[in-house]
Amino acid sequence: MQRRFHAPVVLPADPSCSLLRDAVVDVDADGRISYCGPAATAPESAAPVTTLTGILLPGLINTHAHSPMTLLRGMGGDLPLLPWLNEIIWPAEAKLRPEDIRTGMLLGSVEMLRHGVTTSAEMYFEGEQLVDAVLTTGGRVLVAPPVMELPGLDWKAQLAGIERWIDTDGLRFGHGDRIELGYGPHSAYMLSSDGLRATAESAASRGALVQIHVAEAAAEDSAVRASHGSVPALLRELGMLDGRVLAAHSIHLSDSDIALYAAHGVGMAHCPGSNAKLASGIARIADLRAAGVAVGLGTDGPASNDDIDLWEELQLAAMFARLATGDSTVLTAADVFLLATRGGAAALGRPDIGALEPGRWADLVHVDLDDPAFACGLDVPDVQLLSNLVWAAGSRRVRDVWVAGEQVVADGESVKVDRAKVQAGVAETAARLRA
Amino acid sequence: MQRRFHAPVVLPADPSCSLLRDAVVDVDADGRISYCGPAATAPESAAPVTTLTGILLPGLINTHAHSPMTLLRGMGGDLPLLPWLNEIIWPAEAKLRPEDIRTGMLLGSVEMLRHGVTTSAEMYFEGEQLVDAVLTTGGRVLVAPPVMELPGLDWKAQLAGIERWIDTDGLRFGHGDRIELGYGPHSAYMLSSDGLRATAESAASRGALVQIHVAEAAAEDSAVRASHGSVPALLRELGMLDGRVLAAHSIHLSDSDIALYAAHGVGMAHCPGSNAKLASGIARIADLRAAGVAVGLGTDGPASNDDIDLWEELQLAAMFARLATGDSTVLTAADVFLLATRGGAAALGRPDIGALEPGRWADLVHVDLDDPAFACGLDVPDVQLLSNLVWAAGSRRVRDVWVAGEQVVADGESVKVDRAKVQAGVAETAARLRA
Repeated sequence: MQRRFHAPVVLPADPSCSLLRDAVVDVDADGRISYCGPAATAPESAAPVTTLTGILLPGLINTHAHSPMTLLRGMGGDLPLLPWLNEIIWPAEAKLRPEDIRTGMLLGSVEMLRHGVTTSAEMYFEGEQLVDAVLTTGGRVLVAPPVMELPGLDWKAQLAGIERWIDTDGLRFGHGDRIELGYGPHSAYMLSSDGLRATAESAASRGALVQIHVAEAAAEDSAVRASHGSVPALLRELGMLDGRVLAAHSIHLSDSDIALYAAHGVGMAHCPGSNAKLASGIARIADLRAAGVAVGLGTDGPASNDDIDLWEELQLAAMFARLATGDSTVLTAADVFLLATRGGAAALGRPDIGALEPGRWADLVHVDLDDPAFACGLDVPDVQLLSNLVWAAGSRRVRDVWVAGEQVVADGESVKVDRAKVQAGVAETAARLRA
Repeated sequence: MQRRFHAPVVLPADPSCSLLRDAVVDVDADGRISYCGPAATAPESAAPVTTLTGILLPGLINTHAHSPMTLLRGMGGDLPLLPWLNEIIWPAEAKLRPEDIRTGMLLGSVEMLRHGVTTSAEMYFEGEQLVDAVLTTGGRVLVAPPVMELPGLDWKAQLAGIERWIDTDGLRFGHGDRIELGYGPHSAYMLSSDGLRATAESAASRGALVQIHVAEAAAEDSAVRASHGSVPALLRELGMLDGRVLAAHSIHLSDSDIALYAAHGVGMAHCPGSNAKLASGIARIADLRAAGVAVGLGTDGPASNDDIDLWEELQLAAMFARLATGDSTVLTAADVFLLATRGGAAALGRPDIGALEPGRWADLVHVDLDDPAFACGLDVPDVQLLSNLVWAAGSRRVRDVWVAGEQVVADGESVKVDRAKVQAGVAETAARLRA
């Protein structure tokens, strides 16, 4: 069904982050945007009009998440990384049944949608469960089932499973292409060169996105550094950088690593909150952006970055870049807003989302103004309103959310699933994991 | 009126940050806590019982704020500090009328109370307006009118004004001692040594708190560094450290500065968000705490840290300390919760607030559980529940707030003032400032 949205302020996330007053977004019957611009110059339309009172913006894009870990949120508290993984997280994950992962993803997806995050790139086991959960909540997801070597796990079988799935269901499916399948080779320390090369070839032949952890902890890739200089250098050698690649974290990069990312169009998922909480370090965002690398923002999983609220990452990305450079003008509110929208789409190789432009899917978020954040009113200069949105309001007043034109959150609540019931399911699972 | 609060979880903010299950807080007729402990061992009581469904904790303490700047929130966006001050903030402040400052403080106070922040230490002009606003909202405030040298400002007159006020109204007044008067010598670069010495003497003779900015920007105190070694060394020489002092920011401290703070019981207001947004640096919290300095958390003003939500500072304090030390176990959820409560009270020299202990004022916050943050349930281990509260929930589910036993927020809204009307007043003032 065609539809028109009319709002006092629209933020299309165009490259200059302009802000439209009294503007209209038209959505066609498929759920794609057909017009975004001033109401005064909008085409004639007989479509029903949804009149909004606040700010209309594209859905935010979470470029790196493990959202089913809502089941494990806060487990182990602030233990150091290794005992936390060995004693708490892995034993708990070993008890997870496939349907638990659906439950955890249901909550993660609903939670993100309520924050105005319409898309997430997910690395987790039981991809079918993730897809089923997201088809239920109405969100959008890029699923990367793992390819990794662990006792009892055979990377060849994992790879074959992904190939079979893509060859059966297609790379993208669901209304509005809301599901995309891909590959999740965990990292260069959890998968051999043979496995990485085979994954790269399989993904490239299908045009699929590869999600991989790169240079998160300073020590993790010392072997690769010794043998190949760096993980990006190894990945280039193995041919992985010739396909679509999303490199998560990417904290400890050299200048030549950054040049490799830029030359090969590698997307980068910047996860400032998780990187800080785990004391991993501050990624070189200012340098990456200057080199022309497509940078998006990510929350990482709710076990290490607990409320998967991407709006916090906007603020953290700006804060960390400023602390790292000593320059308070590095990464403005506009810059980080673009990282979370247009930039995230570019990092994922998805020019069909992340901005309000004709041809892109109508993933829309309505932020209302009933908050002290907006007390100075809508008539403030653009730069001030953007500041109020990014630095003061955040997710607090996200009220309505549409994905490919379909409403999935109304007045702050999911219209697709009963949140209380989902939370009860998580509580039940969490109790079983403790038992 | 005596009253009993009964909750499934109570977080008293005792020194070990323990967590009580099925517990009770009794409040006497004056508004002080008379008991906090397990329901099973609570004294007999005929007081009416308020049964809560979530977590009961002490009100958070914001140790450094300029809250009337809600009027200027986001003005100038992300301009560099000096043009922002010279071209945007100071010209706007020059247009402020006393009643505007009341309006701005009304919103700031309501906003903080809705976040569960019951106390703030404020440095701003027109102290009477701040006091009137906070008496209206029902919050708690420590007001420090400025003592500073600027064209047209006479520090001696400012000092005399503070003395007259304290000598007339007393150091503390209002139900539950909710107003405390003090001194706000801006900094060692905005006030001469004579002015600082006179302020110190006047404050000490009245037992009043001195709030002062110290070592916020690396360059600001180069003159004092050259002549006296450091600002803390100068303040000691002038006698200021012998009284009650709250040193805000305190980023660029040497080991001997930290030793001075510890030896003289100087309180420290750590403002991680503002310090990062303005690229000022990361304060040495781990070292300050190890030295035994009383550290609290502060938001700074909403012009530079936009939503004055102290819960964000809990997370930021932990993240920055971990990035600075490379140790992910520095500052746990429990540690930062104590900074924001008990620690803030100690930094302000106010042992009558900041924890749920007999004799302290009943400044209480009820956080309910209707959020994905708490989906794993209440029956999780203490360390996990505290993690869920601090890392995932934050201010989002603050529902009810009491100050000295009096309810000021119910179901997330002020019961004292009409928030919509306050916001409209801010919008009107903001429009006039732009004109």
